[in-house]
Amino acid sequence: MFQARGYAVHSATTPLVPFSFTRRDTGPNDVRIEILYAGICHSDLHQARNDWSNSLYPMVPGHEIVGRVVEVGSDVQKFKVGDYAGVGCLVDSCRQCSACRENLEQYCEEGPTPTYNGKERGSEQLTFGGYSDQIVVEERFVVKVAANLDLKAVAPLLCAGITTYSPLRHWKVGPGQKVGVIGLGGLGHMGVKFAKALGAHVVMITTSPGKGQDAARLGADEVLISTDAAQLAAHAGSFDFLLDTIPVGHDLNPYMALLKRDRTMALVGVLTDTEPLAGVSVIIGRKSVAGSAIGGLAETQEMMDFCAEHGIVSDVEVVQIQGVNEAYERLLKNDVKYRFVIDMASLADA
Amino acid sequence: MFQARGYAVHSATTPLVPFSFTRRDTGPNDVRIEILYAGICHSDLHQARNDWSNSLYPMVPGHEIVGRVVEVGSDVQKFKVGDYAGVGCLVDSCRQCSACRENLEQYCEEGPTPTYNGKERGSEQLTFGGYSDQIVVEERFVVKVAANLDLKAVAPLLCAGITTYSPLRHWKVGPGQKVGVIGLGGLGHMGVKFAKALGAHVVMITTSPGKGQDAARLGADEVLISTDAAQLAAHAGSFDFLLDTIPVGHDLNPYMALLKRDRTMALVGVLTDTEPLAGVSVIIGRKSVAGSAIGGLAETQEMMDFCAEHGIVSDVEVVQIQGVNEAYERLLKNDVKYRFVIDMASLADA
Repeated sequence: MFQARGYAVHSATTPLVPFSFTRRDTGPNDVRIEILYAGICHSDLHQARNDWSNSLYPMVPGHEIVGRVVEVGSDVQKFKVGDYAGVGCLVDSCRQCSACRENLEQYCEEGPTPTYNGKERGSEQLTFGGYSDQIVVEERFVVKVAANLDLKAVAPLLCAGITTYSPLRHWKVGPGQKVGVIGLGGLGHMGVKFAKALGAHVVMITTSPGKGQDAARLGADEVLISTDAAQLAAHAGSFDFLLDTIPVGHDLNPYMALLKRDRTMALVGVLTDTEPLAGVSVIIGRKSVAGSAIGGLAETQEMMDFCAEHGIVSDVEVVQIQGVNEAYERLLKNDVKYRFVIDMASLADA
Repeated sequence: MFQARGYAVHSATTPLVPFSFTRRDTGPNDVRIEILYAGICHSDLHQARNDWSNSLYPMVPGHEIVGRVVEVGSDVQKFKVGDYAGVGCLVDSCRQCSACRENLEQYCEEGPTPTYNGKERGSEQLTFGGYSDQIVVEERFVVKVAANLDLKAVAPLLCAGITTYSPLRHWKVGPGQKVGVIGLGGLGHMGVKFAKALGAHVVMITTSPGKGQDAARLGADEVLISTDAAQLAAHAGSFDFLLDTIPVGHDLNPYMALLKRDRTMALVGVLTDTEPLAGVSVIIGRKSVAGSAIGGLAETQEMMDFCAEHGIVSDVEVVQIQGVNEAYERLLKNDVKYRFVIDMASLADA
């Protein structure tokens, strides 16, 4: 065990404050990572404030982690000291179930071990996330990060990136397809970049007319303002795939009308209730409302390699750890383009 | 034109009454059918009472039609006088769109022509359905019915049958799979029969403990009482496919928890709003809520042939046309096992 430092929240109603805690020593299959950057995911805020009624305190949030390997266990094969490495939402899983055997650890039938707000497998020890100076993770749950990428802008790929990349791949988005990305935030801006890089004709679907220029810069070929009934009607029945990144409950039916027959809209942002779904929205045209959660480790590595090849990173605003509570308040107002990333070097001043 | 007789409803609040009207003469590609039996579909009742706000009066309901061919046009190839024939929910479509070209006329992008409560293509002439003595339909929209089947019990195959057969085939239900049929009514009892005949392990999922014995008789291997939390928990994550035949708005989430990862629940009964869908119900396990509408003509013929081969028909209660209003009232109370069929010979006494 060694002493680690970070920021933690101690209850649903208190701010993040400096926190000291212990982490396990580097085991034979582990890598110890000095954390350089940690992205702020909307789910950090949900869990810090116990919005999902499953919070464990003290909680050190952060599951978009990029850093430098500072120690490797004796059996580690993929990493050496000095490598750049990433850790996402998961740090362990059962490894036995059909999902784990298919490299879909995020759907582990016994429940994967979350990077924070969980417990180490077979233990009461809480897991602590990326708002901290170091983390120790088994190499199977660590991905390699290419040195040619802007590291601070890589961090959000570990959650926002893989969450949008995985469904685009699963539903085989590619050239010749018209793909809509609904909602322009941390997830949506990555969805636009990936869908474009995969060769699709990309339509950014947003309620905000002001986001059009940004959408074009991110790679969108068109912008569809979803509050405009005429625009919705003009695009009816024309989409091959929709990626719905809206993080709060909303009406799915107007979007379902945009899909071609036999096509799918995948939800990735909303864990809570949507508004009522009309049966006719799926029955007429044999359409599907599906969902997708992050990605497995193999696919996360594939995404990282894809990003290195295509020069894809997130659009980020860097903050210091001392400003994390203010960043949460701005996130609540969608006042970020498009992801906050904490420069963990600032922790030295905490 | 010739004079036809049937029963019609003239407004949302009046009963079905005897009605005389004209039908077109038999064109070169048409067959004229003497109607022997007409099933009563729940949607007949919805449309008679304008529940979907799209009713056209006078309305002669009925889209589960079985009869005998009494005249064929000069270019008709599939039928000869004396053949048994069936007509379902559609009597025309555009024939040009991608759906029509793929034999999925039910998803015709210009909208198929319904057997009743619609208008003939390019005309203001209302279409009139099966609660009548004869019907004239282009042969493309007529299926052949094998003489070895019990004709009165064949009628519901034209809607309840194809509505359940098509999704079971589309989602490739077969041996080695555990399939749930939700709701035991006109659709559900056909879903059980087809899923069993396709080789699946079939679980009847119902709120009514009393339906267990019937489910077994229909071919179900197990019965799951969906109001019993312990039974739901015992079956969690175990189904390869769910066919949801419930005809009214309901909560989808408890059923979604029954599915394995990457599997689908198909809605076929509810055209109106469901209760709110939780994002987590599809995101965790990458599941899908889909829908399916009846079937195309080629698949309807395939189903008829499948039924002839496997000896599958509906469980019906035969009524006289004079009792149709009483049958509607009983249908509202689910007081039928499992489909009313009108013996159209009774029309001679009307």
